[in-house]
Amino acid sequence: MPADDAALFGPENLPYGVFSVDGGAPRVGVRLGDEVIDLAQLFGDPRFEQPSLNAFMASGYESWVEVRRQLQERITEQALPAETRIPLSEVTLQMPIEVADYVDFYASEHHASNLGRLFRPDAEPLLPNWKHLPVGYHGRSGTVVVSDTDIRRPCGQRKAPDASEPTFGPSTRLDIEAELGFVVGTGSRLGEQLTTADFERSVFGCVLVNDWSARDIQAWEYVPLGPHLGKSFATSISPWVVPLLALTEARRELPGQDPTPLPYLREERGWGLDIELEVAWNGQVVSRPPYGEMYWSPAQMLAHMTVNGATARTGDLYASGTISGPEKEQRGAFIELTWGGKEPVTVNGEERTFLLDGDQVAISATAPGPHGSRIGFGEVRGQILPAPCA
Amino acid sequence: MPADDAALFGPENLPYGVFSVDGGAPRVGVRLGDEVIDLAQLFGDPRFEQPSLNAFMASGYESWVEVRRQLQERITEQALPAETRIPLSEVTLQMPIEVADYVDFYASEHHASNLGRLFRPDAEPLLPNWKHLPVGYHGRSGTVVVSDTDIRRPCGQRKAPDASEPTFGPSTRLDIEAELGFVVGTGSRLGEQLTTADFERSVFGCVLVNDWSARDIQAWEYVPLGPHLGKSFATSISPWVVPLLALTEARRELPGQDPTPLPYLREERGWGLDIELEVAWNGQVVSRPPYGEMYWSPAQMLAHMTVNGATARTGDLYASGTISGPEKEQRGAFIELTWGGKEPVTVNGEERTFLLDGDQVAISATAPGPHGSRIGFGEVRGQILPAPCA
Repeated sequence: MPADDAALFGPENLPYGVFSVDGGAPRVGVRLGDEVIDLAQLFGDPRFEQPSLNAFMASGYESWVEVRRQLQERITEQALPAETRIPLSEVTLQMPIEVADYVDFYASEHHASNLGRLFRPDAEPLLPNWKHLPVGYHGRSGTVVVSDTDIRRPCGQRKAPDASEPTFGPSTRLDIEAELGFVVGTGSRLGEQLTTADFERSVFGCVLVNDWSARDIQAWEYVPLGPHLGKSFATSISPWVVPLLALTEARRELPGQDPTPLPYLREERGWGLDIELEVAWNGQVVSRPPYGEMYWSPAQMLAHMTVNGATARTGDLYASGTISGPEKEQRGAFIELTWGGKEPVTVNGEERTFLLDGDQVAISATAPGPHGSRIGFGEVRGQILPAPCA
Repeated sequence: MPADDAALFGPENLPYGVFSVDGGAPRVGVRLGDEVIDLAQLFGDPRFEQPSLNAFMASGYESWVEVRRQLQERITEQALPAETRIPLSEVTLQMPIEVADYVDFYASEHHASNLGRLFRPDAEPLLPNWKHLPVGYHGRSGTVVVSDTDIRRPCGQRKAPDASEPTFGPSTRLDIEAELGFVVGTGSRLGEQLTTADFERSVFGCVLVNDWSARDIQAWEYVPLGPHLGKSFATSISPWVVPLLALTEARRELPGQDPTPLPYLREERGWGLDIELEVAWNGQVVSRPPYGEMYWSPAQMLAHMTVNGATARTGDLYASGTISGPEKEQRGAFIELTWGGKEPVTVNGEERTFLLDGDQVAISATAPGPHGSRIGFGEVRGQILPAPCA
């Protein structure tokens, strides 16, 4: 089923986004099939006459439940006035949220092990802290962009392992990271700790994330303070925020955690999610990362991120880190898929390793919904433009 | 001269802040001596009727020059109406800026070498990339707080070097980092690169920064993606933003860079700054970090941060990293000053290493102004509250 199939956006999904028509003011809508429901028009509610979902998200869990209930009722009763239903083909989709802080985790054991082997070939692939806490770092909020934003190949410093000095130029190892992102709806005050049980009422929904990564820049810069320029040039997200309320059928226990994490990271019932991703490189599917294989849950990430009293804010975005399964064709980054560029994959008949100018990447996902339906996440897409320093 | 001496806030300084009186609406003011000039009142300009400096900063360099010129003229002509002058003792100072992205650099060679020796005792203290690029990482914007905000000791995971498993509890190695922060006034578009020459027109001004750090949490979590929970609980900034325009007399060449950095990091004339800091621990000065000893300049940091095309935005805050000079009594973090807690310092007659509950830290700074005057930065202060998990 193609990622934009109308059947993936039935009344059991109802993802939220921000759209405009003919250059008009952006406002909040919900996708239903091949249409966008104009919520500002439908409800006459100022929370939807906004260029982001933040105002609606800040109104809290009860409100999210109530709006969803009303929407589903109107759909069932076929009580959506014609002027509130706009064909998807007529709208421009925009950044759905105003990003407050952006944190990227590293929650796939397969990905962390693969990267460890590639970046630190002489050491244990998984570092001693990895199974005790969801490792993560802050990324750049200001360069989170919506799907279909072109991605300019970054320039920067990199040093080949056998070179004595770094050089400057366009990244030669431009990569993707297929991830799932979680959007905080209602946050916490400074000094307050959110628990794993707070996840359900605190996180509004999910987006697909492509955390574009310049591996050559990253490898040279990242010790000891972590990735910076190798990641900060752009992070793309899908335009539709799938509400957590739509993912109840997708919820699963985690694959298993050994050792048992410290009490603040424990969950009464796991927040694993059975979401199946697809990565298409110039239209050809090259990988199918299974979110259900992730080691750490998003509820654990939220509890960890605030255990020190750090504020969570409406609009905070935190991402899972690259989703990679145990099989080669389940790896969510090309550096893993091609084993550091040494094992090219065939894309439309060509042997390929990292991204070339003009390449297009589309990441899509679906999850089980009620009564055998499927919930679509749509796509996060981007095309590579040449570097300005070439 | 005490940090709040009126003489440090003469007409050659004129730092900007946000204040309120008796719980009224916050607005923009300028400090002059022991008074705050109410700019909203003085100029009747909506850019100053704001809870942050962002609107004014976004109006750009020419506007910053013009407002400063008008202010200095009015002061010279004693043409400030009485109702625009409010005693400092009657105002509440607030967060001066709405922080967009927050990046923390690591620009002191002495600090980076000391930390390298303490965190990685068996390796070269300075990593191979350090003299080629200003190493930095993103911090948490949402927990940047204004001076005098109480700092709750964070809880978290840490693992003693000789322990087999991590434990959870209040940080036992709570520390400070005395830094200088740079506030971006006018930014750049996605894909655009700012040069070192753009610094002067892009950065609005400077604040003092205390990057509170839980060393035990940091040491356990920071490999391989950098500091996260060990820093994200709070970062304090001083309430007054000293305009870059006030620091022309403080400008110096850097101490020297060897090897010569790559072209994009070179400066026609260095942006070293002769700013003298003082760190007071429970009222006793324990360190005098010299900003003039920093290896990388803030113009180099800005050029590096955007060389990959990352956007800079109005309100972006980037900090220098801990300022440490070559002498022991010039170290800007207690982990260095006490050499990892092994060489206590005497504070008010007591032997001290890391911060105890109830401790107060105040960081202040001054710089040379025109005609033998001095420019004050005021103070960034904070007091430690007990952990909630004790």
